[in-house]
Amino acid sequence: MSNTELIRTRSTLHDQMGLIAAEIDTLFDAVLVVPPDTSGRLIEAVRYASIGAGKRLRPLLVCAAGDLFDVPRQWSIRAGLAVECVHAHSLIHDDLPCMDDDDLRRGKPTVHVAFGEATAVLAGDALLAMAFDVLCDPEMPPSPKVWCELASDLARAAGAYGMAGGQMMDLLPSDEPLDMDAVARLQRLKTGALIGWSVDAGAMLGAASPEMRTSLRGYAQKLGLAFQIADDLLDVSGDESQVGKRLRKDREQGKQTFVTLLGAERAQRQATLLVEQAIEHLYCFEGRAQLLAEIAAFAVNRDR
Amino acid sequence: MSNTELIRTRSTLHDQMGLIAAEIDTLFDAVLVVPPDTSGRLIEAVRYASIGAGKRLRPLLVCAAGDLFDVPRQWSIRAGLAVECVHAHSLIHDDLPCMDDDDLRRGKPTVHVAFGEATAVLAGDALLAMAFDVLCDPEMPPSPKVWCELASDLARAAGAYGMAGGQMMDLLPSDEPLDMDAVARLQRLKTGALIGWSVDAGAMLGAASPEMRTSLRGYAQKLGLAFQIADDLLDVSGDESQVGKRLRKDREQGKQTFVTLLGAERAQRQATLLVEQAIEHLYCFEGRAQLLAEIAAFAVNRDR
Repeated sequence: MSNTELIRTRSTLHDQMGLIAAEIDTLFDAVLVVPPDTSGRLIEAVRYASIGAGKRLRPLLVCAAGDLFDVPRQWSIRAGLAVECVHAHSLIHDDLPCMDDDDLRRGKPTVHVAFGEATAVLAGDALLAMAFDVLCDPEMPPSPKVWCELASDLARAAGAYGMAGGQMMDLLPSDEPLDMDAVARLQRLKTGALIGWSVDAGAMLGAASPEMRTSLRGYAQKLGLAFQIADDLLDVSGDESQVGKRLRKDREQGKQTFVTLLGAERAQRQATLLVEQAIEHLYCFEGRAQLLAEIAAFAVNRDR
Repeated sequence: MSNTELIRTRSTLHDQMGLIAAEIDTLFDAVLVVPPDTSGRLIEAVRYASIGAGKRLRPLLVCAAGDLFDVPRQWSIRAGLAVECVHAHSLIHDDLPCMDDDDLRRGKPTVHVAFGEATAVLAGDALLAMAFDVLCDPEMPPSPKVWCELASDLARAAGAYGMAGGQMMDLLPSDEPLDMDAVARLQRLKTGALIGWSVDAGAMLGAASPEMRTSLRGYAQKLGLAFQIADDLLDVSGDESQVGKRLRKDREQGKQTFVTLLGAERAQRQATLLVEQAIEHLYCFEGRAQLLAEIAAFAVNRDR
């Protein structure tokens, strides 16, 4: 790729990220009206956790996948808002003292530090519930049937057999060190489930053929692993002020990650390989899946 | 009502409660399969919190309202399972040390005592997500549109502008003591929202006319308040071994309730009056809403 092409490509990705992040912020702001009673504190905490922060990677994935099938951006953004609710919910709860006990997130004190633990538990709960209010509008096109299916898939991706199950595995001390298979399974649940849902949501909203859905699932699976390795690498060598959260925690807590298992250098090579494999799954779209390819490249070459 | 009638009535309610509780248990048991990895601990905790316990009042309300419109019990039980997931979720989180800090629930140690705090947070999260997996089956009759609407209503009833908001109000120390209006608003959010949803779900599944839905909403609103007063009375004068949770906590924690505001005797009279008013809303069903009337009477004459 020439330098000019690289700049244009980066600019497309950068523009799309900015656009989608702004739309998600606008929707959060519109929906989260602070009521004039003491329950208002809860909405303040939800706003604090959800507005003006984060890469909005999951909504971006919904939009990029949806674009392949000319899904109206309005539909994709709605699905993106829902998955971003679930993501923000999981960050608040994962940061709690009884969980990962983090005090910094997206460059700010975590919700339980800023608002107290009880409010943080409730803010996470409220965001999880909100995801399904966002998804399940019975009047929204293309059809309630599609939104129903998206909602049950998202519930499964978030729940005990998805993200929550992955977080459980991550918290439990195991009798013997996890091997690569166990770490991969953990990460498939903990971060892979929502990434997979996001890509699939774009395909479902666009009534993609089963073959195309399968290709996109292959892409999402490789991307999820690559993204996680990049996260593990950031934990080892990232800059806290850039990443916006406490780093060097995996080693402190004796957690097995791709980086502790493979070493930084091999992990980096593995991530690059996974991105190539992810992009290979996009061949059937004959060059129209440029944005998805760029997202995959970005996922392993980021500083936050 | 003659003694014989009273016994027959009680027997109907008792039979229905037993039947519905058994069906809910069967469904929880079937859905909550323990996976053969360390995330299995999470499912164990969810099973511990959800199977074989509770009055199943909310599923009973869905069924009783649905019966008025010949809604197949299978549909009502599905909606009932969903609201019971949300209810069990809220109990686990409300019991956490950072919230009400309770160690006894339904006669057993609370989830965080039995499984640890982190698992309790995740078990509550998993149950909330599960509610929407249960509700949003796109193949389930009568139509995805109805289930979509039920799901978004349940999300709102559970979230920041419903139950979670009510719990926030309950936790926040207020500058001045709450008056009757504030306590009523708090309880309408904290317990009224799910009770209201349950009754409305039966009506929506049965395609009830707007007039009938309005009547049932009136019933549910009075019932919710009566139920809460009965709960407050149990806190003051109940038997812990019967109720299955720690009592006398409202006064200890300086919480304003209907009983602290009115005194036990006036609160009891108020509850009785509310039940009468709830039952008045059932007149348009011309005697066919006997089960709903019995539930209302039971709600204020119970020992657990």
